[in-house]
Amino acid sequence: MPAMPPKISPLAPERFPEIPSIAGVRFAAGACGVRYRGRTDVLLVEFAPGTTVAGTLTRSLTASAPVDWCRQSLPGGVARALLVNSGNANAFTGRAGVQAVEQTVRGVADVLAGRPSQVFVASTGVIGEPMAAEKIVAVLPALAKDLAAGAWEEAARAIMTTDTFPKGSVRTARIGGFAVTIAGIAKGSGMIAPDMATMLSFIFTDAAIPAPVLQALVAPAVDRSFNSITVDSDTSTSDTVLVFATGSGAKHPPVTDAAAPLVADFRAKLEEVMADLAQQVVRDGEGAAKFIAVTVTGAADDRAARRIALSIANSPLVKTAIAGGDANWGRIVMAVGKAGERADRDKLSIRIGGIQVAKNGGVVSGYDEAPVVEHVRGRSVAIETDVGIGQGRATVWTCDLTHGYIEINADYRS
Amino acid sequence: MPAMPPKISPLAPERFPEIPSIAGVRFAAGACGVRYRGRTDVLLVEFAPGTTVAGTLTRSLTASAPVDWCRQSLPGGVARALLVNSGNANAFTGRAGVQAVEQTVRGVADVLAGRPSQVFVASTGVIGEPMAAEKIVAVLPALAKDLAAGAWEEAARAIMTTDTFPKGSVRTARIGGFAVTIAGIAKGSGMIAPDMATMLSFIFTDAAIPAPVLQALVAPAVDRSFNSITVDSDTSTSDTVLVFATGSGAKHPPVTDAAAPLVADFRAKLEEVMADLAQQVVRDGEGAAKFIAVTVTGAADDRAARRIALSIANSPLVKTAIAGGDANWGRIVMAVGKAGERADRDKLSIRIGGIQVAKNGGVVSGYDEAPVVEHVRGRSVAIETDVGIGQGRATVWTCDLTHGYIEINADYRS
Repeated sequence: MPAMPPKISPLAPERFPEIPSIAGVRFAAGACGVRYRGRTDVLLVEFAPGTTVAGTLTRSLTASAPVDWCRQSLPGGVARALLVNSGNANAFTGRAGVQAVEQTVRGVADVLAGRPSQVFVASTGVIGEPMAAEKIVAVLPALAKDLAAGAWEEAARAIMTTDTFPKGSVRTARIGGFAVTIAGIAKGSGMIAPDMATMLSFIFTDAAIPAPVLQALVAPAVDRSFNSITVDSDTSTSDTVLVFATGSGAKHPPVTDAAAPLVADFRAKLEEVMADLAQQVVRDGEGAAKFIAVTVTGAADDRAARRIALSIANSPLVKTAIAGGDANWGRIVMAVGKAGERADRDKLSIRIGGIQVAKNGGVVSGYDEAPVVEHVRGRSVAIETDVGIGQGRATVWTCDLTHGYIEINADYRS
Repeated sequence: MPAMPPKISPLAPERFPEIPSIAGVRFAAGACGVRYRGRTDVLLVEFAPGTTVAGTLTRSLTASAPVDWCRQSLPGGVARALLVNSGNANAFTGRAGVQAVEQTVRGVADVLAGRPSQVFVASTGVIGEPMAAEKIVAVLPALAKDLAAGAWEEAARAIMTTDTFPKGSVRTARIGGFAVTIAGIAKGSGMIAPDMATMLSFIFTDAAIPAPVLQALVAPAVDRSFNSITVDSDTSTSDTVLVFATGSGAKHPPVTDAAAPLVADFRAKLEEVMADLAQQVVRDGEGAAKFIAVTVTGAADDRAARRIALSIANSPLVKTAIAGGDANWGRIVMAVGKAGERADRDKLSIRIGGIQVAKNGGVVSGYDEAPVVEHVRGRSVAIETDVGIGQGRATVWTCDLTHGYIEINADYRS
């Protein structure tokens, strides 16, 4: 049983947001005891008929059985339910893991009178331990009876593992003059690295969006949100982002093109919800005491900029320097150098907290460290570097590396 | 002034090895006060005329001025002297950094009556601070007078930064029936990542080896030694491995081909010295409490095997689990999955301390964790994984990630 760190991240938002019900979405959370005691650990979400789904899944080559299941079901584009459990990732569990997914999916299809291929699943927790699917199946009838609209915070809590706070976000978007709601929940705290989305995030909207259009909206937004965060450079076997569009009661004009001006506001708000949730994951990074935004400009292209930004954001030496309130910008230079992307050392410039520290390949003349140290000692640190090559730019969010991370991870599981 | 952690790594060798003098190599260490007080911080090495040199340098795009200098001089293949200082890396110091190198190199050429292009230099320490070259130049005449054979431990101490023990290694090799000596020193403890060699290592031999042959011997040996270690995935701007062959008094037959049977023993012993020094760097990894060997077999090729091994060895979650004495092998599965190289999840097998933990994509039946936990709680941990694709194999060495790393790096420099 993992010892959960009792205290809430100092970077946590003040409160869980007020999120209205979304037509066509009902939740029920329960305790099935797969691993944890005295808390909820399973979430069932039911969707109205006609709900479409899009998503992105981990690119890990040791992906979990639930991820394999979702990858197979996503092209269908239709969702009737989502089942999420915490405590066991059902990853690296071989044939038994596949059977566990099939068993739970069938269980959900039975209680909701739906098709297994329209039931999406996600599991998070320990890797490599057989999962007691029967414990989940046993609580499904009770969950089906409990289904109700709007229990967002409860839903977010049921999917937590080492998270210290539940994560939610909501925006209202307009499509052709009609308001729709986009709301989501997420979990994640460690084993967080980009290029694969966060561990788990589920986003819901009452807009009516055909699955292929939804997928075209989701992919670029995930790149600029979940794929732009890192806690520890370790990529989960379970990373899953799913977006469900119920269309329940939607009055807006038909959406047929992800690039159309009709969905410009929806697209922007969807990315806002994703970026908000992604940043909450970083704010709950294991042991995090500081929130760090790394912006790289002047790279060969945006992809190169993101790789350089990630090299900085993943550097243990940069992260520990910031943890120690040390304005050791030489470590930023090092991280740019190891990124493997083009950078002109002799044009490199660095700003920390908006203050120019280095330019043209050297420290600025008359450099005064005092205000930079003051910034780095705060809760929120901004690093900007221009690498002097081209127009590429990217921002990545991360947290510092502290004793808390070591404490949580040297003890978790045993 | 960095607060040096006072205690010696628990993984340190019992003592510095006995290393004989090498004909044609003379050392002098001194204190010039570039950064540290009360310790030596500059090393001058003089070589007999006709000494050849080969080496590998960091691939960092923000390489230091001394690295740029060595890259320019290496094709000459001839070395008259080596100058190393600790405390300031002379990296990201712009035009002033280049001038500092020129000034010190000229100083050495003057006191030894040699050519600047035959003087090799290396600097290690803080990045981004202007280096007071005049302090180094000022002590050169005294160093030149002090030059003497055989002061290996003193030499190794003068180049230390956060190292907790001096690193040396020696082997005797036979070339055509004649004995030659290969001896080296190294420094490095943090900012250690492969693909670039360790921070600094200098190896000396009295064999007579033409520079192109020496280079052909050095490159593959570096790949299997310094390029196969990692402490924290951070790559230094100063990584330098230089090998000097004096040929002084050598009686062996002429060496003209790196692949010839004549140099088979030399080749093997050179790699042994490099592997010994590389492993000592890991044993002095910042905060290290355990030495970890990661072997990957069954990969598509050796390069793929090394990337997978490095993914495991660089994973903060694997390293913290081992620090905590936790046999959390699910994190090894995760690290294989994120490596980006082909792996067959359903054929994956894992051994820890020689004990089979998982095979064919799942935990072994009747798995008994107790002996595995006992192994992981020891000072030396062996992880082996077969990824079920091909014949590629690689071994990488690393250390665990502990509170010590955070302590050293949240405070270093400030």
